[in-house]
Amino acid sequence: MAAKFFAYFIVFVALFSVAKSDPDLLQDICVAEATAGVKVNGFACKNDAVVTEADFFFSGLAKPAVINNTVGSVVTAANVVQIPGLNTLGVSLSRIDYLPGGLNPPHTHPRATEIIFVLEGELDGLVHFQKNNGHEPASVIAGFNSQFPGTQSIAATLFASTPAVPDNVLTKAFQVGTKEVIKIKSRLAPKKS
Amino acid sequence: MAAKFFAYFIVFVALFSVAKSDPDLLQDICVAEATAGVKVNGFACKNDAVVTEADFFFSGLAKPAVINNTVGSVVTAANVVQIPGLNTLGVSLSRIDYLPGGLNPPHTHPRATEIIFVLEGELDGLVHFQKNNGHEPASVIAGFNSQFPGTQSIAATLFASTPAVPDNVLTKAFQVGTKEVIKIKSRLAPKKS
Amino acid sequence: MAAKFFAYFIVFVALFSVAKSDPDLLQDICVAEATAGVKVNGFACKNDAVVTEADFFFSGLAKPAVINNTVGSVVTAANVVQIPGLNTLGVSLSRIDYLPGGLNPPHTHPRATEIIFVLEGELDGLVHFQKNNGHEPASVIAGFNSQFPGTQSIAATLFASTPAVPDNVLTKAFQVGTKEVIKIKSRLAPKKS
Amino acid sequence: MAAKFFAYFIVFVALFSVAKSDPDLLQDICVAEATAGVKVNGFACKNDAVVTEADFFFSGLAKPAVINNTVGSVVTAANVVQIPGLNTLGVSLSRIDYLPGGLNPPHTHPRATEIIFVLEGELDGLVHFQKNNGHEPASVIAGFNSQFPGTQSIAATLFASTPAVPDNVLTKAFQVGTKEVIKIKSRLAPKKS
Amino acid sequence: MAAKFFAYFIVFVALFSVAKSDPDLLQDICVAEATAGVKVNGFACKNDAVVTEADFFFSGLAKPAVINNTVGSVVTAANVVQIPGLNTLGVSLSRIDYLPGGLNPPHTHPRATEIIFVLEGELDGLVHFQKNNGHEPASVIAGFNSQFPGTQSIAATLFASTPAVPDNVLTKAFQVGTKEVIKIKSRLAPKKS
Amino acid sequence: MAAKFFAYFIVFVALFSVAKSDPDLLQDICVAEATAGVKVNGFACKNDAVVTEADFFFSGLAKPAVINNTVGSVVTAANVVQIPGLNTLGVSLSRIDYLPGGLNPPHTHPRATEIIFVLEGELDGLVHFQKNNGHEPASVIAGFNSQFPGTQSIAATLFASTPAVPDNVLTKAFQVGTKEVIKIKSRLAPKKS
Repeated sequence: MAAKFFAYFIVFVALFSVAKSDPDLLQDICVAEATAGVKVNGFACKNDAVVTEADFFFSGLAKPAVINNTVGSVVTAANVVQIPGLNTLGVSLSRIDYLPGGLNPPHTHPRATEIIFVLEGELDGLVHFQKNNGHEPASVIAGFNSQFPGTQSIAATLFASTPAVPDNVLTKAFQVGTKEVIKIKSRLAPKKS
Repeated sequence: MAAKFFAYFIVFVALFSVAKSDPDLLQDICVAEATAGVKVNGFACKNDAVVTEADFFFSGLAKPAVINNTVGSVVTAANVVQIPGLNTLGVSLSRIDYLPGGLNPPHTHPRATEIIFVLEGELDGLVHFQKNNGHEPASVIAGFNSQFPGTQSIAATLFASTPAVPDNVLTKAFQVGTKEVIKIKSRLAPKKS
Repeated sequence: MAAKFFAYFIVFVALFSVAKSDPDLLQDICVAEATAGVKVNGFACKNDAVVTEADFFFSGLAKPAVINNTVGSVVTAANVVQIPGLNTLGVSLSRIDYLPGGLNPPHTHPRATEIIFVLEGELDGLVHFQKNNGHEPASVIAGFNSQFPGTQSIAATLFASTPAVPDNVLTKAFQVGTKEVIKIKSRLAPKKS
Repeated sequence: MAAKFFAYFIVFVALFSVAKSDPDLLQDICVAEATAGVKVNGFACKNDAVVTEADFFFSGLAKPAVINNTVGSVVTAANVVQIPGLNTLGVSLSRIDYLPGGLNPPHTHPRATEIIFVLEGELDGLVHFQKNNGHEPASVIAGFNSQFPGTQSIAATLFASTPAVPDNVLTKAFQVGTKEVIKIKSRLAPKKS
Repeated sequence: MAAKFFAYFIVFVALFSVAKSDPDLLQDICVAEATAGVKVNGFACKNDAVVTEADFFFSGLAKPAVINNTVGSVVTAANVVQIPGLNTLGVSLSRIDYLPGGLNPPHTHPRATEIIFVLEGELDGLVHFQKNNGHEPASVIAGFNSQFPGTQSIAATLFASTPAVPDNVLTKAFQVGTKEVIKIKSRLAPKKS
Repeated sequence: MAAKFFAYFIVFVALFSVAKSDPDLLQDICVAEATAGVKVNGFACKNDAVVTEADFFFSGLAKPAVINNTVGSVVTAANVVQIPGLNTLGVSLSRIDYLPGGLNPPHTHPRATEIIFVLEGELDGLVHFQKNNGHEPASVIAGFNSQFPGTQSIAATLFASTPAVPDNVLTKAFQVGTKEVIKIKSRLAPKKS
């Protein structure tokens, strides 16, 4: 199907995303025990006796994030890592804030489908990224059908991962010269502090 | 597990809800064909040639709903019925608006888990309902891991369904007299216009 | 769909239940290790060397239960708690016995669909409860597509849980006065011994 | 794991069966439309307007079947074919009646796990068959986590299918001579009427 | 459906197999920790710090196996036991090599569907076994949608398991005399060394 | 987890891929009816009466493909489109052939995990692509846990889709100038014939 159907929509069937779903739960709750000695698919469960309200609450999405990077947008996740009570529940949220001109670069969520609610501003929502082409900040809430959707920036994965994707693979894939590949790699390289 | 853990949370593991998940999709998109002659689990798919942007967009959650009912809250759904493009994607949203004192009464979503983002106001969010005990209106966005979560008001299902649940079942279940049951039934009966 | 279709049936698509299914198993058996130090979705598996026939057998459904309560019915479960061998198998049974006039009050199974086989007697099986309106005892076997379906009494959840659902939520939900709510709460309160 | 653990159990983890589960439902009900022009995974749904109580009820398990065959047992199914309302619900039942000495021969349910409730009599329940070694008739109710579990007799599949499994495959698999294979085939051949 | 459709195919919808699927993964990788103290559905995960390339690589399918048995074929598995990195990934392979006249006897994979790629030679691929009726060796690669499909030889399960299936069950199932059953059992009995 | 673990492996946990699984089947077979008037999730089923052996067989993977393109590799799919019998079975294969120096460019399978068997040659198998750095042709068979895995070239999706991803999105994502973006777009543009 051609991609043209997807401009300015609220449901992001991102070209690299999927509608998969987490396995169903087998008990009422299974609050993630992040420090469990045993690692399993998802997380082991806390003992019920130490589960508290705080395991189901997260205030980190309430306010816009401070945006201080090259692309002009910040994603704040509210998944099983931030909310242990989400473990085995198959759902999570993110908040994305954009400066004017800010871009949430092309990316993929390998374990979830995404649906977007625009909190404020206007977005040129396109196929698999969102860009704030307006003059005001913008913010959205994204819902996912996974407790831990995963997110991978396509550019960073190809040009800034370790071990590096060899230059001759990238020149062949993007049909450019080695010079351009090296240039992109240097720009996307993690900043040394 | 005792229910006390759930006060004031953002994740609603409603006592009557579940973390089930829709079946996975088998192609890129399958936009619901609401008028298809054939009915299947979910919906049959539109022909790709007639799919448009509008199948993935819904503006109905952008503004608070007008609240004009006894309980003081309105739920506006954005599921596969409003957004045909959600078919086979396993995700949907709702917006709930509350007057001061407004209540989203005890209910269940038989096919989804719910996660709540508070847009404005303060809610006494409790186990399986939400109540706005503040002096200002409140609004939330609810994310679901189903294209069609379903919603059933517990009070209406028991006291206002057709055919009626017999009075002697309700007196036994709630341990009250027939008089009280008849009273509740009359109050919850659908208004005749 | 109107509820009238469901009177006197053998398949209980209870209004608050769902047809979800447990995750598939990944090995031949995984007998629940109830005392495992680690808690996971479902149960960890016993070492095969200590698995015995007894892990797959349960005689507790063979005879009618003694019924000695207000509602006149008793549910005897045969799920993963009673039969550890059911772990990861996605199936379980219950037996429900009813005195004449006995009621299995409105309830929900959050993780399973239920199908009923009537062992003896006649039941006014209605939407989401069963009542023995005959003059003889009645018994049924219920099959579930989950190793641990869960069961929640609607009345008890709303009027007898801890922490209590506030009175003003219940008055608004059921459209009755505080007096009636307090009355129901007192009747449904767990007996102190 | 050795098979010896499974003698005399109530849960049949038949050696050829599996704990798979049907896909989850996407609406309240989807009663099978057996005569639909379109065939899909499972069944297309009847129009709600023509759904009746009868779609959810089946009296065929109420009484023992007449047993009139070589093996001395009869299986009466109550799956989506007999109860159209089971479509998308992921659950079904069977009743099996046995004469004294009757055998439910080794078989497999390719799409379900089975759990057995003994209605009357005693069964030498063994790994993947059941035999009534007592002097009285016996009956069981079997629960499945599928709307259509499927059943295949191992002997008939190998020795009486069309097209026939070649003799030299069977002699090699069972390490017997062609004479024995031909003998078994003739005994298991469908009776001509 | 009659079995005749399946002769000479590449997709094996084996009569005793199923298309079930493993539960979805909840993180990027969960390499099986075979020696974990805790046993779960599938396997617990290794600590990421000790995961290496070797967890995702297996050279055991590269060459034909030495065939030295009665049936003239050998199955070499490449599932989660050989490749720990397959844990939670829902996929695996096998290689099957056949002498001229070799047979992969009737069997079942209780947790997977199988698809076959013929590496060399010709197979009389039939319903639920494969036989090399040619004059040259043959080899295939089989793909499965499970990390651990399981395999059970039908003949061995019925005639060579411990505890033994009673003779009178087998005589009734296969409609032969006790003498034939005893003969088959002796031929299929595990060799004592 | 760092990507370095994945060099030279046989299991491709491609960075953009997932281990999702198709929904389980509900009957023995459901051969895809490609020309069905009704479109559903996956495909509607052919009438059994017109199912033939050919629906389960595909000879298209038997020989290396002719390679005549810029990247030096060709993928030949054997999924539900080529083998209608795969419908509802959750499994498929592909063959990939590489010239010396050939590259299967970075890509994603949105609905499946992939496992690779090397038929001949040597591949620098890296994270999410494969390159034949040897002097001889190479070929692999890839197994998938989906009847229709989907494949998307990352470069083509970003630089050659319609409608085009705006230049200023790509300059920001890859941190290059407009000139480089236009250059890549022109190189990757579909050839006009």
